[in-house]
Amino acid sequence: MRATVLHGAGDVRIEVVPDPKLIEPTDAIVTVRSACICGSDLWPYNLMEPNGPHRRMGHEAIGVVQAIGSGVHTLKVNDVVLMPFAFSDGTCLFCQDGLQTSCIHGGFFGTVEVPGAQAEAVRVPLADGTLVVLPVDVDDAMMPSLLTLSDVMGTGHHAALRARVGPGKIVAVVGDGAVGLCGVIAARRLGAEQIIILGRRPDRTKLSSDFGATDVVSVRGEEAVERVRQLTGGLGAHSVLECVGTEQAILTAINIARAGGAIGRVGVPHYQAIPAAEPAFYSNVTISGGPAPVRAYIEELLPDVIEGRIQPGRVLDRVMGLDDVPDGYRAMNERKAIKVMVKP
Amino acid sequence: MRATVLHGAGDVRIEVVPDPKLIEPTDAIVTVRSACICGSDLWPYNLMEPNGPHRRMGHEAIGVVQAIGSGVHTLKVNDVVLMPFAFSDGTCLFCQDGLQTSCIHGGFFGTVEVPGAQAEAVRVPLADGTLVVLPVDVDDAMMPSLLTLSDVMGTGHHAALRARVGPGKIVAVVGDGAVGLCGVIAARRLGAEQIIILGRRPDRTKLSSDFGATDVVSVRGEEAVERVRQLTGGLGAHSVLECVGTEQAILTAINIARAGGAIGRVGVPHYQAIPAAEPAFYSNVTISGGPAPVRAYIEELLPDVIEGRIQPGRVLDRVMGLDDVPDGYRAMNERKAIKVMVKP
Repeated sequence: MRATVLHGAGDVRIEVVPDPKLIEPTDAIVTVRSACICGSDLWPYNLMEPNGPHRRMGHEAIGVVQAIGSGVHTLKVNDVVLMPFAFSDGTCLFCQDGLQTSCIHGGFFGTVEVPGAQAEAVRVPLADGTLVVLPVDVDDAMMPSLLTLSDVMGTGHHAALRARVGPGKIVAVVGDGAVGLCGVIAARRLGAEQIIILGRRPDRTKLSSDFGATDVVSVRGEEAVERVRQLTGGLGAHSVLECVGTEQAILTAINIARAGGAIGRVGVPHYQAIPAAEPAFYSNVTISGGPAPVRAYIEELLPDVIEGRIQPGRVLDRVMGLDDVPDGYRAMNERKAIKVMVKP
Repeated sequence: MRATVLHGAGDVRIEVVPDPKLIEPTDAIVTVRSACICGSDLWPYNLMEPNGPHRRMGHEAIGVVQAIGSGVHTLKVNDVVLMPFAFSDGTCLFCQDGLQTSCIHGGFFGTVEVPGAQAEAVRVPLADGTLVVLPVDVDDAMMPSLLTLSDVMGTGHHAALRARVGPGKIVAVVGDGAVGLCGVIAARRLGAEQIIILGRRPDRTKLSSDFGATDVVSVRGEEAVERVRQLTGGLGAHSVLECVGTEQAILTAINIARAGGAIGRVGVPHYQAIPAAEPAFYSNVTISGGPAPVRAYIEELLPDVIEGRIQPGRVLDRVMGLDDVPDGYRAMNERKAIKVMVKP
């Protein structure tokens, strides 16, 4: 089959690889009908060392079950399934607590160890715990929005929960990528009163307004902090969703949080230490977040997608075939696409 | 009157200073009957630059109201009052939210700007919002425990709340100072199942056992992390109370927190950045805490003290007169005393 292989920074290729096979009895093989390129894929795309182990990319997918192992009991061949970006057994104490991204037996797709879903098919470990059967046809028009439940919509929701968004709250979202935009949807959905997005690209901030953002701050650094203060009566935001992952972004997040507020960081951190340890302390700002247990959120978010109350699929502004995936990486890296949907 | 003045590192003196006077109509003057030396006083005691502005030290007190301004309505002369370490108006939106340490008009005692309570008397700004009338006599035997509600007991409670301690939780307390010991009391009080204290001094860890600690880890750094992992089935603690304030302590706190766990940091941070930004992210560990709004906690904790269910006053293991305060600083700095109570 064909699959996406990252060889080094800037060097992503579509290659013919062996078809995936059932290895463990708990595995399923899924024929991928739609996948995504993720903003987080751009980190290795830009930074991966040459001559290291290759990575089979992709961690978001909807597909059709092609085969199941003898230990899989909740799925059958031909089921249409949603694949979260992490696999998890669904039974360990972390899974029971709704933190499937810390599953004792789990892991992540699209790593050096576990081949990813930007491919014609993917092996899904711990299939019973991982996959969710979708109650719709694979060609349904709402497929893009459903696909975001694999990662970005669940991740925006996680940021909002960890930042303690709720009715009446003032929320700031740092970053206008797909996760930031889904963070706006999540904040609106959870009842936020004011939603300020920090982003610089007009097409994205326009979309954020459709999703419920009330204010756009398009400056950066100290200027952005000043502007958010102005927009919040000098006090800052109750809840800050950090959806970038740079040191500058987390610093801005801390500086725009109001005393007693909370930050949900979901941008994969590319910083060793969290800056502003003293200001965050003196203002009792809580710093939370991490890899979103999107598996835990699917049941809650799915009805809103199916009944059309939220349309996170609008962040998928390009659709490409598998052979065009290298162009998709370039388009996202140059910020010409918000997020690319891949139809293998 | 006599008061404690810090001139520079290691140079603390008892000096005659002008008696405090009412300045604002919302002020009260309180005759100090008992005060404390705080672990946090040791930071400037060790690090204060020479030739800088002097500091009138002390931020914990019980005393008797000597005079009130024309704008004070809830207090009267001769009331026995408890003074939290921060003053606050009790009416701003942060005070209403129970975060009096971020009061818009508030501040802290014992700073360069606001004279402290290791003195014969102290001026209390915003007296209505700040002071709490005690329903007991000033010579009551439970005075030491009541005095801890000025700071260390409320601070330990804040750490526990921010670390989300609750019934059945496994709690680790980093630090065996007065705050760490009060953190043990708070964790026990909130229903923790296992309480592991990280500390090296046998007299203190003995006291922690009396307070409810179930395990003592007396090694440090990587060894301590390993030991806590062993004590928690390899998973770490749900809740970690960071009661020291060094970079090593917060690093240990992050490394012993279980996935999805929370850290309540109340040690005044002497680090610029919070280390282990990536491990904390990947395990969804929440980092919270800050200056405790002890004013908010007095009503809740007071009955437990008065009815004898908790005895945080046991951390006050030395009592001294005002003239001996310099010896008190030395004793605490050399870890010969846990916490010194001062009777001016």
